[in-house]
Amino acid sequence: MQKNIVFIGRSLDGYIAGKNGELDWLDTIPNPEHNDMGYNQLMDEIEAIVMGRTTFETVCGFGGEWPFSKPVFVLSHSLDVVPEALMHQVRLLKGSPQEVLDQIHALGYFKLYIDGGKTIQHFLQEDLIDELRITTIPILLGGGIPLFGELSQSMEFEHLESKVFLGQIVQNCYKRKRK
Amino acid sequence: MQKNIVFIGRSLDGYIAGKNGELDWLDTIPNPEHNDMGYNQLMDEIEAIVMGRTTFETVCGFGGEWPFSKPVFVLSHSLDVVPEALMHQVRLLKGSPQEVLDQIHALGYFKLYIDGGKTIQHFLQEDLIDELRITTIPILLGGGIPLFGELSQSMEFEHLESKVFLGQIVQNCYKRKRK
Repeated sequence: MQKNIVFIGRSLDGYIAGKNGELDWLDTIPNPEHNDMGYNQLMDEIEAIVMGRTTFETVCGFGGEWPFSKPVFVLSHSLDVVPEALMHQVRLLKGSPQEVLDQIHALGYFKLYIDGGKTIQHFLQEDLIDELRITTIPILLGGGIPLFGELSQSMEFEHLESKVFLGQIVQNCYKRKRK
Repeated sequence: MQKNIVFIGRSLDGYIAGKNGELDWLDTIPNPEHNDMGYNQLMDEIEAIVMGRTTFETVCGFGGEWPFSKPVFVLSHSLDVVPEALMHQVRLLKGSPQEVLDQIHALGYFKLYIDGGKTIQHFLQEDLIDELRITTIPILLGGGIPLFGELSQSMEFEHLESKVFLGQIVQNCYKRKRK
């Protein structure tokens, strides 16, 4: 069965990055024991990762070892080649969300982690997100890159679970309610 | 001690009303036993209500009995008089959020429920909100009137409590963390 899962952190006012792309506020709450807040469970659950070019370049910019053990599909109309060091881990794809999904499914990957602001918004616009796992950091940023964007119609979700991590960070999981 | 509390419902994507001011989505989840989701507790706790003109006119438009038992202060630069039927319940005020608060405090009201999108945003811009009680309806509206607006600086909050009502509606309470 296919499943497209969003797993992302946002501020109380709905931003996934600050006005200048800042991500430091994600670490506002001290996490000395490195609670992964469900990330490793997600990684066990999915078969591949889909992300936009901006997210890909952000991850590359972190330096160090490539952090993903599952295949990564990067959606880009401007990139032509993947850095050689990543040619076995990363594959470039072009097309609409549905076209991209068809290509990924044809390769045998059905449980997908959909990442990156624009990519999430494009998938939502075509109603292709099945689960939202949203982790809210208790801070108002007052501006930045929003998680959600315009939709042509409203979409109902079903609440699955809420957890509080580190006494401060609320994670809510929702499943798309389709009629 | 003074305390300014926001208590408001929003969509998963952060809107308090739809693109055309719709509020019907607030009733997406059936609530046959009329769970008040903390509203009556809030009403017991506060001494007065502060709202903008738009919210005031929306409440008036509901018709029926006036729903508030506590004094209501309506912030407006355009209204000059209160409808006669409400002259003992409602008082008009003008000025900046701090000026308005000074007037309300001088009348002996210190625990306040701050309501209405613009009013909440103006109070937040001056860092005058002490508690946020946000009730999230599991729906993406895809556009509308946002709860939060631009801020000149980020603001950290402390998570106080999370509750799930009717198995679907998550309410998160936060307290402003001041240094």
